[in-house]
Parts: sequence; structure tokens; C-alpha cells
Amino acid sequence: MSAVPPVATMPLPPELDRELAALLGDGWLTDPGERLGYAYDNSRRHSLPDAVALPVDRTQVVALVRACRAHRVPLVARGRGTNTTGAAVPVGGGVVVSFERMDRIIDIRPGDRCAVVEPGVLNGDLQAALAPHGLFWPPDPTSAMFSTVGGNLACNAGGPHAVKYGASRDNVLALVAVTGAGELVECGTATTKGSTGYDLQRLLVGSEGTLALIVEATLRLTPAPATRRAVRAIYRDVASAAAAVARLMAQPVTPSMLEFMDADAVRLARDVAGADLPAEAGALLMIEADGDAGQLPRDIEALMAAAGGDGLVSLDDADDEASRARLWAARKALSPSLRTLAPGKINEDVVVPVSRIPQLVGGVQALSREFALPIICFGHAGNGNLHVNLMYDPADAGQNERAHAAMARVFALALSLGGTLSGEHGIGLAKRDFMPQAITAPTLALMRELKRVFDPDGILNPGKLLPPLQDAEGGVAPSPGGTAPRTAP
Amino acid sequence: MSAVPPVATMPLPPELDRELAALLGDGWLTDPGERLGYAYDNSRRHSLPDAVALPVDRTQVVALVRACRAHRVPLVARGRGTNTTGAAVPVGGGVVVSFERMDRIIDIRPGDRCAVVEPGVLNGDLQAALAPHGLFWPPDPTSAMFSTVGGNLACNAGGPHAVKYGASRDNVLALVAVTGAGELVECGTATTKGSTGYDLQRLLVGSEGTLALIVEATLRLTPAPATRRAVRAIYRDVASAAAAVARLMAQPVTPSMLEFMDADAVRLARDVAGADLPAEAGALLMIEADGDAGQLPRDIEALMAAAGGDGLVSLDDADDEASRARLWAARKALSPSLRTLAPGKINEDVVVPVSRIPQLVGGVQALSREFALPIICFGHAGNGNLHVNLMYDPADAGQNERAHAAMARVFALALSLGGTLSGEHGIGLAKRDFMPQAITAPTLALMRELKRVFDPDGILNPGKLLPPLQDAEGGVAPSPGGTAPRTAP
Repeated sequence: MSAVPPVATMPLPPELDRELAALLGDGWLTDPGERLGYAYDNSRRHSLPDAVALPVDRTQVVALVRACRAHRVPLVARGRGTNTTGAAVPVGGGVVVSFERMDRIIDIRPGDRCAVVEPGVLNGDLQAALAPHGLFWPPDPTSAMFSTVGGNLACNAGGPHAVKYGASRDNVLALVAVTGAGELVECGTATTKGSTGYDLQRLLVGSEGTLALIVEATLRLTPAPATRRAVRAIYRDVASAAAAVARLMAQPVTPSMLEFMDADAVRLARDVAGADLPAEAGALLMIEADGDAGQLPRDIEALMAAAGGDGLVSLDDADDEASRARLWAARKALSPSLRTLAPGKINEDVVVPVSRIPQLVGGVQALSREFALPIICFGHAGNGNLHVNLMYDPADAGQNERAHAAMARVFALALSLGGTLSGEHGIGLAKRDFMPQAITAPTLALMRELKRVFDPDGILNPGKLLPPLQDAEGGVAPSPGGTAPRTAP
Repeated sequence: MSAVPPVATMPLPPELDRELAALLGDGWLTDPGERLGYAYDNSRRHSLPDAVALPVDRTQVVALVRACRAHRVPLVARGRGTNTTGAAVPVGGGVVVSFERMDRIIDIRPGDRCAVVEPGVLNGDLQAALAPHGLFWPPDPTSAMFSTVGGNLACNAGGPHAVKYGASRDNVLALVAVTGAGELVECGTATTKGSTGYDLQRLLVGSEGTLALIVEATLRLTPAPATRRAVRAIYRDVASAAAAVARLMAQPVTPSMLEFMDADAVRLARDVAGADLPAEAGALLMIEADGDAGQLPRDIEALMAAAGGDGLVSLDDADDEASRARLWAARKALSPSLRTLAPGKINEDVVVPVSRIPQLVGGVQALSREFALPIICFGHAGNGNLHVNLMYDPADAGQNERAHAAMARVFALALSLGGTLSGEHGIGLAKRDFMPQAITAPTLALMRELKRVFDPDGILNPGKLLPPLQDAEGGVAPSPGGTAPRTAP
């Protein structure tokens, strides 16, 4: 992983401080104790912001961006800081914009299958409000109960349901956002079809607060299935499980979840967490279908037929919620038991075409041996989106170095298999310096130019997503969309 | 509709002509007779290009764009010219780039549910190649048998299946394209999830050849359903049918088609085309479900339950292909019978939130009376995407004027209902001048800036999608992304 670049934070210009205090009132935090809670995200990186803004409406956001732009002070958008890439950490100082006071559900329109929300609403609170209407918003990251819709959109968050229902980008109709130039833009319409100009709303999804600050989102909703049912398939080895994934995805019944655990993950769940798994289990799939109670048995039958085949050890169908919970126990036991292997974990969510899962898992196992560190793979097999968990002791300099070298090789492996760096976590700081391997130079240059259009002075989340620009001599030049030079107060 | 702006075409610079003749060989057409076939599209607009290029690979496309850029000669991408908005008509002269020689299906990967194609492949030819694999590509415009995948992507084409399977933008994973700067860019990956930088591939979809020329597409495929079954629901009036549409879209079984016909459409199909429809029919829905043969009866049952309710006159279920064809006959008879009303037709595909269909149809009926011209509405009700067919005699100056005035009011009506100008046809020339009503000024300014990033000299399809830039005095200034000034040879 790239170290956080050293940035000399300087205090905010006093006139900006006064202006924003007047604008935001008690929504302008400058006390170090208050700022501390906005210094980190789930990547465990830390960097204290110079101030925290808690706007209550779009008018305040526009004024805030314009004021900061005038002083070239960085703005880092923040939901609840659950992201894993450092994208929400204000490494260049400046102002963190937390949307915690913009958390209203503005409208739920069941007949149009859409909801209009402010960015700070928690995903879980939205789902609770939608449930009485028989609708849900598909993105379901593990953090759903305590992550915001705005943050989900910023990272293009997914989750296990994405295999059937898509990730955040697939479930947004329209956005209102404030660009780095302080312009309020309205992208998309509240309709499920649209061919009116350039698709700006899907461009903003996954842009990690580097192009604009989302102040309102119109989300595409899906009717909630009445029932769900899980199947656990255990295989002799990863190759058999991966072949089953390809069969499952090539037949017409798309599973609502298709989760994978490799041999090490199975062993951990069994030996450490006590899950009921046979000794010969070399890989595991959790397969779930959802839908109408009358149809579900047929769907499960089709999925079980596709799951069968060479290398299958056992196939268990949970026909009630208790059995379903028992089958899922192995998967849920996994994350806590990882910590028994080592105190530190790097969890990256590379993605490959489904057919390449065996090569990815095999290659990762080889890297685990080469670097003498445990690497456990599990995740969203139906999308080829595996979470590669490298376990190490960060206090051990040798392990620390090997861990980061191994992870660089994992990225190179995923790219060589026709995959990419991230399926649902995003780039942030963690994968930023690998972007030139994933994206061709002309394409990356185009992304930089797009950044410049939305954010001419580079004040929005500087240093994230795009790597620092290398000049012709190989040195690092200030990126047009990179860290903003700060004017002295 | 806007008239085609008068542009003084000047001959191609002789050195460019020589350079491109050497590059393209018999793929460089300059004979007026040969150029004639590339002068029009299905909007019936005409404008003769100065030359036609038929590249065979991406290397030729890069060289072609760079050469034309050096001389600031416009390039207009063309599939098979089936689009209805003038987007493929070279109104500023220049070079039409037809992708008819880049029509290969490069790869079909069933396990990864994707296919890699060149832009010139016909949608229908692709579907035929996919069928043996049990897969299909969802976009199904009426023109599918003779329109290209590249053209479908350029317009974000949809069709009746979009209600369940999405339009073109929802069914693309990755694109390789050549920008107006002559740079080859690679956007997206062949995976169904991705959060690696900015989403350029969905930005290119629907951009009508104004940002880049697509030279390769990786398409997301869907397993083909084994069976399908249709229901015809006849209602007393449009309000009852529209209420049924909202009920149908709010329950869990998403229909694979949900097509609407208003009272005039029903009357035409019955009285002119002899379709078997009752006299009291004031609106009609064609509802179709697809899937496994075992599940289909339950799906149809759910859809029929939702279709029932106040105002239902009759509900007919086709349980075999012959009955299905008979039910669809009314819908298919409609388009030819429109011509009995008037020789000219303006067909625009506005879209509104599903719940606003009654207001749209009611408002259109009022405009039909006000302007004394027949306007018939039918189309993809599940997406709120109605085709508004205004019938008139183009040779009658009064009708001609009233027709265009009425259509301007139809656009204003759709926008006032929270909808937008186009669901699947795009903007082209036909709706270009309505863009400032649909898109706010700061958002439109952002679109212009994006255009400039991809196409710095404004050579790609100038004059399309974005309206000419108005200067501060209200005059028309040359747009940075508009018609390219031509240097004298």
C-alpha cells in the first residue's frame, strides 16, 4: 500500500474560517477534539482535518465549495467513514464535509419504483423505510446498517445481492451534485430509461468525491422478494467450485447471492469457529435464491442442478430460516476467526471474469507460499469479486514489507486475468498507485482531464483515486486534479 | 423540429483526400453516387458527406481521426442509419465513418456471460450467434435485424424488453474507443462489477458519436428465457390502464414487456387494421412474461392479478405461440395503419415516471385537439417511455407549422411531469434545441466541457446532441464542441 504522502497542513485562512462559521453556525467544527472523529476511515489511516463542515442543505454546500475554492482549501466528502481505501481521510488537511445533517428521506414513490434521499441517510434506515412499501434498494455492503447512501454511491458499493440486482451504479436514476467549481448540477431523471445527453449520474457514482459532492439522489428501487432460500455446496477443490460458479451463472435462474470460500477459509471456519464442515471440504459455495414462495422450490431445484457435478462433496438445502442461519454460520464465523492468524489484515476486493476464478485463487495460493503469509479468499463469486485477505503482523518489518509486496502481485495477477483492482471498495489511497497498471496511459489522461472539468482547482478529495502525475523526467509534478496548492492565509 | 442548419460544405483538402485514400484503399469513397447512400438516416434528413470511410480496424480509425483532426474536418459515425433523430446525417459535410467492415463477433464467453464485438455487427446477427449458447443481448429496438450494436450503443437503444432487462447502457461492460483527439482509450473491464476510476464506458453510451468512435464493445449477456407468454388487457380508459401499469411495476414479477396503446391507437388497430378489439376499449396493455416453463404460469397469474382492477374490460391469456401472435396482431397492425391518417409522421419517444402516464396521455390528447392534428400514443409503458406519433401533411404549410409547435408542447409537457426528452432514440438534431429546457444551464455547460475534453476541436458529429452555444448577447457563437470551423484546403 502507498504510504500517506506527507503534506504540510497549514491553518485555515482566518477569513475563510470566519466566513464558514457565519455560514454554518454550529455546523462548523474547528476544535481539535471535535475534528478527531473525522480524521480516519476503516482503512485505519489517520489525518486530522483543519475543520469539519456539517451542512444542512444544498445552498450551504454550494457556498461552502465556493468559499473553499476561493482559498484553494481541499474538501473531503464523508458519509460515516466505513470505506476501506482511505478515500475519506483528509490527507491534505482542509475541510471534511460530513453529510450527517443531510439525512432526510425526501420522497418514496412506490408506483415509480424510486426514492429521493439526501446523501447522509443510512442505507439501513432507508431499507427500513422502504420495507412497508414492499421495496428495497439493492446495494447491501456489510456496513449497510451504519454506512450512508451517499458513501455507497461515492464508492459504487455492492455486496452479495449485486450478482442479481447490481451495485450502486446500477441502482441510481438521478443525482443533484455540487462540482468543485461550486456549480449545482442536475444529472439524470427519475425515469428508468433516458437518452437525453451525456450520462453524468453514473459518472459521479464511484468517483469517490473527487468530481462533485452529491446533495440528493433519486434511487432505483426493486420489489422485495417474498421469500429466500439458501443452499450450501461443498466441493473437493477450488477448481470444482469455480466450474460450478460458471454453470450457475450460465443458466437462467440468477442466484440472489453466490458466495465463495476457499480451502483456507473453510478450514478456519471449521477448526477455529467450529462450523459443521467435512474434513474433505476444499471449497464452499453459499447459493441463495429469492422470489415468490411458489416459484422458489423450482429456482432452488435449478440452482442445485447447476451446482452439482464433478468434485461436489455435499449439497445442503435450508428450507427454513433456522437451517438457513445454520448454513450461513460458517460464512459469518469467518471474518472474526481470521484474526487468530495474525493481528493485521489487508482486505482487497479484486474482480476477475467468473471463468478466471480458479486461476485467481490458485495464483493467490502460490503467492501465499512465496511470501510465507496466509492469504484467505472468499467473496462474491457470481461477480468474480473476491475479497483477498492477507494476514500479517504490521509490527514485524519483514512481514509488513512482504505483505505489501504480495498484495502488489495480487493486483498484477487480477489484471493479467482480465480483471481489475476493485469491484466495490474503490481506489482511494490504497490502490491509487496501481492505477497506471490497470488503466492505459491515454485513458488515465482522459480521466485527469475529466477531473479538471468538474474540479478546475483540484480541491475535491485531492490525492485520491488518480495517481500523482509523473512528469516527462520521471519526477512527480503537481497534478491538475491532484493535491491543491494552498495559498498562504 | 429544428431545420438542418445551412452549412457551406467545401471540398476536402486534397492532401487529406490523398492521405486517406492511401490509408483506406477501397474503403475510401468519394464518388457522389457512392456517397449518396450515406447522406441520410431514418429521420429523412439528407446531407451529402464529402467522403465516406470504411475502416477495417482500430488502427485505421486512429489514423483517420488524427488526419481529419489535423484538417479540422468533421467525422460522423454511422451504423446502418436506422436512427430517427438525424444523429447520423453529416449536416456539416465532412467524412462519414461507416463501420460496415468492422462487423466481427470477436469472442463469445458463455461462462462470463459476455461477448466481444466490433461496432458494425448487426444486433440480429449477434442474437443469432448467441442463441446456441442460450444467451441473448437484451436491447431489442424495432430495427434490431438491420441496426448495428455500435449504433445501438451510440443512441442507448432500448426496446420493449428494457422494462425487465435494461437498455444498451445497462448491458455494456467495456468499450474501446477513439476520441476526437485520436487517442485510443479502453474503458471498463469484462467483469460485472467494477470500481476502478471513472465510469467512461457508460458515459460513451448514448453520446451519439460526439465524444468518441467505438471500435470494440464487451457486452453483458443474459441467459435466454426458455418460454414466454402474453396477456392482453383491455381497459375502459387510459387512467385505468395507467393505474394497472403502476400496480404491475410495484409487484415482484417484472414483466418482460409491458406495452401500451391509447384509445386512438386501439381504434386504428380495430377500424383500419381489423384487429379483434371490443368497441368499448379505451386503452390496451400487452403484458408478457418470460422464464422457465414451470414458473411461467405463476408469473402470468401474478401479472394478471395486478392487471385486474377498476376499469378492466377484458383480460386474455395466450397459452400458445399462435394465440400470442393473434394478441400481438393489434399492436403490429398499428404502425402501418397510422399512415391512413396522414402522409407525415413525427414520432418522438418522451419518457415520464410511470405514475405520470395518465397526465402525459391526457395532455397529449388536449394538444391534439388544440392543434387539430391526430396524435397517437403507444409504447413501453413499464418504463414510462411512450412513442408520441403526430400525424400531419408535411406539404401543407399550416399543418407543418402546427405539427412542430405541438411537438414542442409535448416535450414541455413531458418535462413538466418530471420526465425527459428521449427514452431510447436520443437527441441528434431533432431534439437538440430543446436541450436547454431539459437540462439546467450549469449541467449543459458541464456537458459542453466534457465534449471539449474528448473532442478538443469539435470534429466528432458536430451540431448534434448539444445545442449551439448562445453568447451573452443572445446571438449564436461557435460552440467549442459544436460545428468545427473548416480550414480552407
